[in-house]
Amino acid sequence: MDKINLKDKLSMFSDHWSPKIITEMNDYQIKLVKIKGDFVWHNHEDTDELFFVIKGKMYIEFKDKTIELNEGEMYVVPKGVEHKPYAENECEIMLVEPRGVVNTGNTEGELTASNDVWI
Amino acid sequence: MDKINLKDKLSMFSDHWSPKIITEMNDYQIKLVKIKGDFVWHNHEDTDELFFVIKGKMYIEFKDKTIELNEGEMYVVPKGVEHKPYAENECEIMLVEPRGVVNTGNTEGELTASNDVWI
Repeated sequence: MDKINLKDKLSMFSDHWSPKIITEMNDYQIKLVKIKGDFVWHNHEDTDELFFVIKGKMYIEFKDKTIELNEGEMYVVPKGVEHKPYAENECEIMLVEPRGVVNTGNTEGELTASNDVWI
Repeated sequence: MDKINLKDKLSMFSDHWSPKIITEMNDYQIKLVKIKGDFVWHNHEDTDELFFVIKGKMYIEFKDKTIELNEGEMYVVPKGVEHKPYAENECEIMLVEPRGVVNTGNTEGELTASNDVWI
């Protein structure tokens, strides 16, 4: 395989809330996603989900608190926990999660994206 | 859990080649490590290993090539593949690997570090 440059990969797409796979390790995938505005409340019943902010600022709203994440900060949402990501301005994120995870988890809808788009 | 700020975590240690766990997701761990100089040739028989450069420059030498990784670049070393990381100047790295992985893989020695140090 080749090395992966995050900035190069981020320059390849501009849509929001649609994760792109950049590499795999074992049965896990590393994804990049650009977000802006509100996502939907959802949870992932079978897996934790790691968010890492590359650029910008995002929030993850939980039923009992809201986490603010800035560049260079990460947060692991535990499996089964309802959460709603949002960002006032465009924010670039890296995700780590098992192969096949759907972005909207248990809440399919307009924002549900394909889970197998590579860049 | 609290959010994790990589710069804060990196300020908490200064030793080289000794990975520190900063969080877990499922049975995977995210680690930070500072490296300088030469590591040992080794492989991890049972797992891929993800390297992501936060600051500085590192190299991963393989039997048939050498990969240069700069800030914002990542590389996944496939399981079982012999490799030797090195850095001319101090370099700060994030690793993703399954819980319990030993840094020197199949090559225990002076540089073998504890695999359960959290910061």
